[in-house]
Amino acid sequence: MPSPTATLLISCPDQKGLVAKIANFIYSNGGNIIHADQHTDFAAGLFLTRLEWQLEGFNLPREVIEPAFAAIAKPLEATWQLHFSDTIPRIAIWVTKQDHCLLDLLWRQQAKELPAEIPLIISNHTQLEPIVKQFGIDFYHLPIAKETKAEQEAKQLEILKQYKIDLVVLAKYLQILSAEFIANFPKIINIHHSFLPAFAGANPYHRAYERGVKIIGATAHYATAELDEGPIIEQDVVRVSHRDDVADLIRKGKDLERVVLARAVRLHLQNRVLIYGNRTVVFG
Amino acid sequence: MPSPTATLLISCPDQKGLVAKIANFIYSNGGNIIHADQHTDFAAGLFLTRLEWQLEGFNLPREVIEPAFAAIAKPLEATWQLHFSDTIPRIAIWVTKQDHCLLDLLWRQQAKELPAEIPLIISNHTQLEPIVKQFGIDFYHLPIAKETKAEQEAKQLEILKQYKIDLVVLAKYLQILSAEFIANFPKIINIHHSFLPAFAGANPYHRAYERGVKIIGATAHYATAELDEGPIIEQDVVRVSHRDDVADLIRKGKDLERVVLARAVRLHLQNRVLIYGNRTVVFG
Amino acid sequence: MPSPTATLLISCPDQKGLVAKIANFIYSNGGNIIHADQHTDFAAGLFLTRLEWQLEGFNLPREVIEPAFAAIAKPLEATWQLHFSDTIPRIAIWVTKQDHCLLDLLWRQQAKELPAEIPLIISNHTQLEPIVKQFGIDFYHLPIAKETKAEQEAKQLEILKQYKIDLVVLAKYLQILSAEFIANFPKIINIHHSFLPAFAGANPYHRAYERGVKIIGATAHYATAELDEGPIIEQDVVRVSHRDDVADLIRKGKDLERVVLARAVRLHLQNRVLIYGNRTVVFG
Amino acid sequence: MPSPTATLLISCPDQKGLVAKIANFIYSNGGNIIHADQHTDFAAGLFLTRLEWQLEGFNLPREVIEPAFAAIAKPLEATWQLHFSDTIPRIAIWVTKQDHCLLDLLWRQQAKELPAEIPLIISNHTQLEPIVKQFGIDFYHLPIAKETKAEQEAKQLEILKQYKIDLVVLAKYLQILSAEFIANFPKIINIHHSFLPAFAGANPYHRAYERGVKIIGATAHYATAELDEGPIIEQDVVRVSHRDDVADLIRKGKDLERVVLARAVRLHLQNRVLIYGNRTVVFG
Repeated sequence: MPSPTATLLISCPDQKGLVAKIANFIYSNGGNIIHADQHTDFAAGLFLTRLEWQLEGFNLPREVIEPAFAAIAKPLEATWQLHFSDTIPRIAIWVTKQDHCLLDLLWRQQAKELPAEIPLIISNHTQLEPIVKQFGIDFYHLPIAKETKAEQEAKQLEILKQYKIDLVVLAKYLQILSAEFIANFPKIINIHHSFLPAFAGANPYHRAYERGVKIIGATAHYATAELDEGPIIEQDVVRVSHRDDVADLIRKGKDLERVVLARAVRLHLQNRVLIYGNRTVVFG
Repeated sequence: MPSPTATLLISCPDQKGLVAKIANFIYSNGGNIIHADQHTDFAAGLFLTRLEWQLEGFNLPREVIEPAFAAIAKPLEATWQLHFSDTIPRIAIWVTKQDHCLLDLLWRQQAKELPAEIPLIISNHTQLEPIVKQFGIDFYHLPIAKETKAEQEAKQLEILKQYKIDLVVLAKYLQILSAEFIANFPKIINIHHSFLPAFAGANPYHRAYERGVKIIGATAHYATAELDEGPIIEQDVVRVSHRDDVADLIRKGKDLERVVLARAVRLHLQNRVLIYGNRTVVFG
Repeated sequence: MPSPTATLLISCPDQKGLVAKIANFIYSNGGNIIHADQHTDFAAGLFLTRLEWQLEGFNLPREVIEPAFAAIAKPLEATWQLHFSDTIPRIAIWVTKQDHCLLDLLWRQQAKELPAEIPLIISNHTQLEPIVKQFGIDFYHLPIAKETKAEQEAKQLEILKQYKIDLVVLAKYLQILSAEFIANFPKIINIHHSFLPAFAGANPYHRAYERGVKIIGATAHYATAELDEGPIIEQDVVRVSHRDDVADLIRKGKDLERVVLARAVRLHLQNRVLIYGNRTVVFG
Repeated sequence: MPSPTATLLISCPDQKGLVAKIANFIYSNGGNIIHADQHTDFAAGLFLTRLEWQLEGFNLPREVIEPAFAAIAKPLEATWQLHFSDTIPRIAIWVTKQDHCLLDLLWRQQAKELPAEIPLIISNHTQLEPIVKQFGIDFYHLPIAKETKAEQEAKQLEILKQYKIDLVVLAKYLQILSAEFIANFPKIINIHHSFLPAFAGANPYHRAYERGVKIIGATAHYATAELDEGPIIEQDVVRVSHRDDVADLIRKGKDLERVVLARAVRLHLQNRVLIYGNRTVVFG
C-alpha cells in the first residue's frame, strides 16, 4: 500500500448514527476507507472505532482534517486521535542488562516490521552499550539510585524531548518509573515477564516455579503509576513441565517476552490500540 | 440484549463511500448499529461487511427492509443476506456411530450457546438412536450403500424440506455427499478430523501417526462437491508426543472436533461467516 | 493392553543406583516394564519416578509385592504408592448448579476415557438431580449453611466411606471445604475457573474482565486447606478479545474447565501424578 | 550442572530386563543417573531410551565406556549412540537470503542456549555475508545452478569435512539437497515454513493463503532424500485471520520458523532426539 493513509481512533458515548456520521465525513470529502472497525461497550455505554482511509484523492488538505473533524467530534463528546501513516514515530528503547528484547526490536525495525525510527537507547547499566553502538544508535547511561532517581528522571525527560521521542518501550528495563515521570510522558509500553495479574512485581519466574504452574506467560501493557496494573495490549503463554527449573522458565520466557513485546509495539505503531478505562480495544 | 436485531452480510466490488452508504441506510431509518465490521480484500477488489442493528426504534417494517436495501445493493452489484435474530434457524445433525460431537451440540443447544432448534437427526446407522430418543428428537435411519445412495439422498432432501431445515451439520457423518445433493442443499457444515489440508480424506489420525507429526488438528468447513476442500470456518490444534499412539490421537482429537465444530456452528448461526471464493471472512 | 499392570510411584532422597535398584526388583521377579520415567529435582535433592509393568509373568503374587518392595524402599527413605490397573477407583463428583463439567465427566466415563466408577454425586443444590438420575447414579442433596457446615461435612465423610470413594472431584462445587474435611479425605481434585494464581477466589471471570486480560485460563489442582493454593495438575488457556463480555468469558471458560478437569482426573486415575511439596510431577 | 555427563541413546527390540540391565551398567560403575526416560513402541516392538549420568565419580575411563557398553548392547541387538556433554558439536548454518533464522541461531548461541560452536556459514547468495562477517564467522558463497549442483555439493562436503562439522542446519536454505549429498552427510536439520504434511514443497504461505486456513505452522525435521518427508522434531502454529494477507502470513511465520528451528536444534544438541523409522522420540 504505497499511498499514505489517515487513521482516526475515536471513543464517545454511544448514540445512533455514529458510524454514518463519521463515514460520511470521510466519504463526502472523497476518501476511500480501507479499514473500519468499531466496538460498542454496552456496560460502559461507549462507542469505539478505528477508521483508516487513503489520503490520495481526499479533498481536505492534511492540516484541515483535524479542525474539520473537531467540529464533528465536539457535539459527540468524542475523544479522538488523528494519525498519518507517513509520519514515522520515534521510539526510545530502555534496557537494563538483558539484550533479547532489544535485539529483537532492532532486528524487526530493520526488517521493516516496525514502522518507526529508533534513535535512542537509555540504560541504567553499561552492558548493552557495545551492541547499541554497532547499530549506530545513541546510547545514554543513566544509573538510578534512590537518591538520584528524581534527578535522573528529569534528565530522561529532557533527552526524550531532545530526541522528539513519541514512544518509550521498556524492553526489560527493571526499574520502576515514578508517577511524576509517567504523568509527564504517558506513552510507555512495558513488557512484564508473567501472565498478569499473576506474579506482578519482582521475580515472576522464581515465583511461578515455586507455585508449580504448568504454563507461564508474558504481558505487554501501557505503564501507569501503579506497577504492572496498566492497560494490557497483548499476552501470550507457553507450557512448562516439572522438568523445567527456574533457568528453563527464564529461557522459555525470553521467547515469549520478545514476541509479545514486538506484537504490542507494532499494534501501537499501527494505531490499532485504543485505551479506555484500564483496558484496551485492539483493532485486529 | 433482549431487543431483536437485524444483520446484513454484504460483499461487493470495492469503491468509495460503501461504509457511508450502508450506514446511512440504517441511520436514516433510525437504526442503532451494535456491530459493524468490514474487510477489504485488495487482491480480490472486494468489500465485505457485517452490520447488526436493533430493530426497536427502526422505522422500516421488517418486510420492507429487504426491498429497501435491494434498491441500494443493486447499483453496488452486492451479494447480500438479511437475517433477523429472532428467526431461529433449524438444524439437522447427521451422524454415523460416534456420539461425542452430537452430544456436545445437543448440550450446547440446551445451554443456549447455539441459537437454533434441532428437530432432526439423520444417521446411516442405528447406534445413536437411543441417545437421540432421550432428547426427544426425531431420528431417521437411512443406511447408505453404493446402489441406494441416490435414492437415499433424495429421501434425505425430502426430509430436510419437510422439517424446514436451514443448516445440516455433519457431526462425524462418515459418508461422502454427492455433488447433486450439495447443489440442492448447500448449507452444510462438516467437521474433518485433521488440520486441513493435511490428511484430507480417510483415516487422518492413522496417517498423522504414521507421519510422526507433533501436533494434530481439526477443521470445520462448509461442504462442497470436492471432499474436504470447502471454505474453512475454524481450525484448532493440540500437541501430541511419541507417547501417543493412534488411540490417543483419536481421544485427543475428539476434544478438538467437539469444540471446533461447535465454534463454527455458533459463528454460522450468529451470521458471522461470509463466504467468498473458497474462503471465509469470520467477523469476530 | 489387556494384561493388568502394576504401577509404582516413588519419591526419595536422590542417591546413586536408584534406577538400577528399582528396575532390578521388577526384572529379577520377571516383570516387563512398559513405562518408566524419572525426574530428579536437584534443588530439592529428590528422585521421583513412575514404573509400570505387566503382571502377567511377574513371579510375585500381588499381595507380596507390597511387603517385598517395602523392604527395598525403607533404606531409601522412600515415599511410595502401589496401584494395580484392574483395581478400578471409585469417584464421587460434587457439584452445585452447573452441569457442564459433570456431564463431561460422565460422558468420558461412559466413553471409557476415565478408568473409574462414578457411583455417587453430591450437591448443595437440587438442580442437577434429574440429570444424575438419568445416568442411574445416586444423588445426595446436602445444602450448606454456615451453621450446618460442620454437620454436613460429617455426613459427607460418612457417605464417602459408605460408597468406598477413592477420589472426590469438585466439578464446579462452589463451596469451600474445611481444613478438617480435607485432612480427613485428602484425595480431592478441584477445577478453578482461572489461570492460577491469577484470580484465586470468587468471581474470576468478572475480575478477568475488569482487568482487561487478553487470555483466560482454567486450573485443575488438588484441594488443600488453603483455598486455590493446592498442587497444580493441569492448566490451559484461551484467547479473549475486547469483544468478549463477561458472559463470553464464562462461555469460553466452560470449554476450558471441562477439558482441563477431565485431563487432570484422567492423569490422576492413571497414577501419573506425583505430589511433592506444593507441586506435581506429571509423568506424561 | 558443572560436572560433565555422558548420554546414551538406545533403541532395541523390546524384551524383559532392559531398564535393569542398562541401569546396572551405569550403577555398577558408580554413575549417578540424572536423566532416564524410556519409551516402548508396542506396534513396532521397540524399546527406546535415553540415559544421562555424571562422569564425576564414574569408574570407567571415557575411552572404555564405548567398548564396555558395546558388550552389553550386542546381545540386545541395540542401536545406540554415546555422547559426552563437554564435547561441543560444530554446526554449519546454510542460508539463502533471509536472515531471521540465522540471526536467531547466532544470538542463541551467544546467549548460551545452544551448546555448540558455529564456525561456518554457507550460502548460495551473498546478501548475508556482511552480517556473518560481523559475527566473525567464515562465510562461503556457493551458488547453485542445475549444471553446477553436483560439483558444488562436492565442495560443500569437502568444506564440512574441513571444518569438522557435526550438524548442518538449513536455516531457510531454499535449495533441494541431492540424495547423494544426504547419504554422505546425514545429520541435517531443516526448517519448513508450513505445518507438514500440509503445504510441502514451494510457496507454502501463498498456498496457505489460497486455501484459506485459519492457522499456519512451521516444522523442523531431519532432511532425507525425499523433500519435506523426513522425521519431524518439532512443530508449532499461530492463528491467522481473513485480515492477514500473504505478507502477514510470511511475517507471522518468521516468528514461528525462528522458534521452531531453535527448539529442534537445541533438542538435537542435547541428544534428546532419537530417530526410528520415519519418526522421532523427543525425550523432554
